[in-house]
Amino acid sequence: MDIAIVNSWLLTFQNNSLGIVKDGAIGIEDGKISFVGKTSEIDKTDVDTLIDGSNHVTMPGLVNAHIHTSMTLLRGGAQDLPEIEWMNKGIGPIANHMKPSDIIVGSKLGVIEALRSGTTTFAEYSTNVSKLVDEIYLPFGARVVATETINEVSKNRAHLKPTDIYEFDRTKGEKAFKQACELFKKYQKKELVTSMFGPQALDMISLELLQIVKDEAIERKSGMHLHVAQGERERLQIVGRFGKNASTVKVLNEYGFLDEYLLGAHCHDTSIDEREKMVSNGVKMVGCPSSISMIDGIVPPVGHFVSLGGKVGLGSDQAPGPGLHNMFCEMRTISIITKTMMRDPTALPAWEVLKIATGGGSQVLGLEDKIGSLEVGKQADIITIDLSKPNLTPVVDFPFHTFIPNIVYSATGYEVDNVIISGKEVIIDSKFVSINEQEIINDATQRSQRIFRDASEDWMKADSLLVKKVKNGLL
Amino acid sequence: MDIAIVNSWLLTFQNNSLGIVKDGAIGIEDGKISFVGKTSEIDKTDVDTLIDGSNHVTMPGLVNAHIHTSMTLLRGGAQDLPEIEWMNKGIGPIANHMKPSDIIVGSKLGVIEALRSGTTTFAEYSTNVSKLVDEIYLPFGARVVATETINEVSKNRAHLKPTDIYEFDRTKGEKAFKQACELFKKYQKKELVTSMFGPQALDMISLELLQIVKDEAIERKSGMHLHVAQGERERLQIVGRFGKNASTVKVLNEYGFLDEYLLGAHCHDTSIDEREKMVSNGVKMVGCPSSISMIDGIVPPVGHFVSLGGKVGLGSDQAPGPGLHNMFCEMRTISIITKTMMRDPTALPAWEVLKIATGGGSQVLGLEDKIGSLEVGKQADIITIDLSKPNLTPVVDFPFHTFIPNIVYSATGYEVDNVIISGKEVIIDSKFVSINEQEIINDATQRSQRIFRDASEDWMKADSLLVKKVKNGLL
Repeated sequence: MDIAIVNSWLLTFQNNSLGIVKDGAIGIEDGKISFVGKTSEIDKTDVDTLIDGSNHVTMPGLVNAHIHTSMTLLRGGAQDLPEIEWMNKGIGPIANHMKPSDIIVGSKLGVIEALRSGTTTFAEYSTNVSKLVDEIYLPFGARVVATETINEVSKNRAHLKPTDIYEFDRTKGEKAFKQACELFKKYQKKELVTSMFGPQALDMISLELLQIVKDEAIERKSGMHLHVAQGERERLQIVGRFGKNASTVKVLNEYGFLDEYLLGAHCHDTSIDEREKMVSNGVKMVGCPSSISMIDGIVPPVGHFVSLGGKVGLGSDQAPGPGLHNMFCEMRTISIITKTMMRDPTALPAWEVLKIATGGGSQVLGLEDKIGSLEVGKQADIITIDLSKPNLTPVVDFPFHTFIPNIVYSATGYEVDNVIISGKEVIIDSKFVSINEQEIINDATQRSQRIFRDASEDWMKADSLLVKKVKNGLL
Repeated sequence: MDIAIVNSWLLTFQNNSLGIVKDGAIGIEDGKISFVGKTSEIDKTDVDTLIDGSNHVTMPGLVNAHIHTSMTLLRGGAQDLPEIEWMNKGIGPIANHMKPSDIIVGSKLGVIEALRSGTTTFAEYSTNVSKLVDEIYLPFGARVVATETINEVSKNRAHLKPTDIYEFDRTKGEKAFKQACELFKKYQKKELVTSMFGPQALDMISLELLQIVKDEAIERKSGMHLHVAQGERERLQIVGRFGKNASTVKVLNEYGFLDEYLLGAHCHDTSIDEREKMVSNGVKMVGCPSSISMIDGIVPPVGHFVSLGGKVGLGSDQAPGPGLHNMFCEMRTISIITKTMMRDPTALPAWEVLKIATGGGSQVLGLEDKIGSLEVGKQADIITIDLSKPNLTPVVDFPFHTFIPNIVYSATGYEVDNVIISGKEVIIDSKFVSINEQEIINDATQRSQRIFRDASEDWMKADSLLVKKVKNGLL
């Protein structure tokens, strides 16, 4: 046996329960889980690496089902802005000064931050995603669902009025589509890499190309990860193209895209009827609670989709929105903002949120046979959480297990001290095994300082609400 | 000079700005701040302890303006329950099995957790609060606003219907009031201890005793910290006693209690008019975002009070509500739930929240002359935050300071590595100087396991929603 974790609390998530095991043990061999059970039953004589899991929870790694790490160098760059200013006056003027190599370093920063807080699977959604796979995910040993952004619109739309319909450039879209197709072959033999198609959003792609993408997704037994119903800007485009009663979900339904091949991100500008239709048609959903609340002041409809029986995952989106790539933060946030939205403290309880952030994420990404639970034969994507911190004390197991709510409401992510992905140790005792964290942090800092400095004139000129605050000494 | 922190980013909070100083230094002598300025200007030749604050933010300690640490052993004991069950079927049956010594150990646990995450001042609200002051706050060196709970109602009200009016027992109330008065003399010479009166809530005290308390508060130049308008249960009592149009705020106003001597906690069951009246009369407010959202599914009206120009602080209430005693969590939470409630991402921006959690807290507790900013002559209650963590990277200072939003939205509390209170080092390099953390954690765990075990039969019988979930293996 390569690795065994013993004496631990297990959360196996088997059979739609949390699968709590006391004094549990996990065995790992050839990247897969080879034993799940009681410590007393595991054969410890032939174990290469024995990890003592006393006073720890051992559970499946967290699944970040929607993440753009490429913007991590801009963390703190556009918080507290009106939604209408966020992109054009906030992030945009700074992002324009990023070089391709800045994106790589920022992405590295985002990935180490997420690994530290227990994320083992990343649905990375990016242009030129294979660069991130080659330079970050594979060398770092993190599981990635590589999702190439496919859109047909020009980047420079600043001159357009919101009601002006975007022009489509099929060549651009087909180039990205081709890149997306190549991922499947390129990473065919890489256990850590799978792929989904990433048509960006219905306002940014033609129905023709969307159909081509979908046919290919079916052919490759994959899926489409689409930003769905993100608000006013998208709605105006949809109305302009499809008529005044149109909405993203209605159009997707009318043209046959509302089915199990679709994973919709965000989905906040949807009606109750539309959500019911989505769930009954098998559409999956991923919510990014911190991002959507920070950028839009909106609660993503995660609670509603869950209550309808839909398959739901959680993601962190990009750093200049939520501030971080930390699934513990996303778990706590979605529960609390759903409770306050519904004025119901029982909404999205801890056990539900834990399932969403593990098994739920694996389902929406089509990885439920590989990850999301501790079962013999599944990939060994496993984290341990140190319960002996003041904020996770006390640990009580009778008449119930207080560590279930405490992991969701009291943990910060820093309590994760071992991270194993596909049987390889990425973090041991809170230290990266082979990633030079400090080098990445230093590089990221220097680059960001240069980017922000280079962008300062453009940023000031854009004159967002933040510029005024800077002049008042508040930022 | 006893201590100097040099090469640091300062947030001084002087003159109603954040007071950002680059390459800043703080000098500490005899418990007070003796220097605030540039590192180049401080005299380093005669410094006993020199702390390098490179890549750190140095700022005033956080003020937890409403905390009951006594329930910390019950962390995780009642999450995700309906509000109506929370006390009677959730916490109550377990709390009944706590011994006085359990309260002390739980309180210790809550205090070390809060110290670790940068809280230096605690508005501790408790029965027999002087025990906590003597056994915890003074030996731990933490600043406390000792607040003795004063009420006139019997603990055992379980047999009453919600519309049955509580009987008052003046003897009980006066005994607590006497205890409250004694605090002033007892701690007269203790720099770390001040005191406020804690009439629990208008439904739990007679107007006569409340007037006696207020007179004494004026006499002693102190204030009254009252739970205000906590919801239906309170409202039914107020209506029963004062007539069908009565509300807590209306009654307080009518009888002359709505003035600058009043600090109202929670205040969520208040109308817009009532809040305007409160603020214009000088009433202060403290909000506990995680607790009120977790227990009631409600957003405390912190944002509204701030927009009216009111003095506002933040608190963590008790652990079985929010899950933790971590002011970083409260800062992030109040901003996000206010944004989503108001559907406005600009609501309660980072700089505002930082001011609430420091200077705001000091104002509502009547400590603004002592703490809440870095100024020569003020008490040296100071924390440093390590910015060199992945989640706080990058640090950019031009054209604006990204660490301001990052401290509020990305920090978890674990980044606090030095805590100084009244010039004494409580935590250095993330380690407690003289508190045996592990001993407290072990003691807390053993006691909690006993309490929950002893309570199990009562808890099962109470048959809350959680009991059903335990039977389903979800807790």
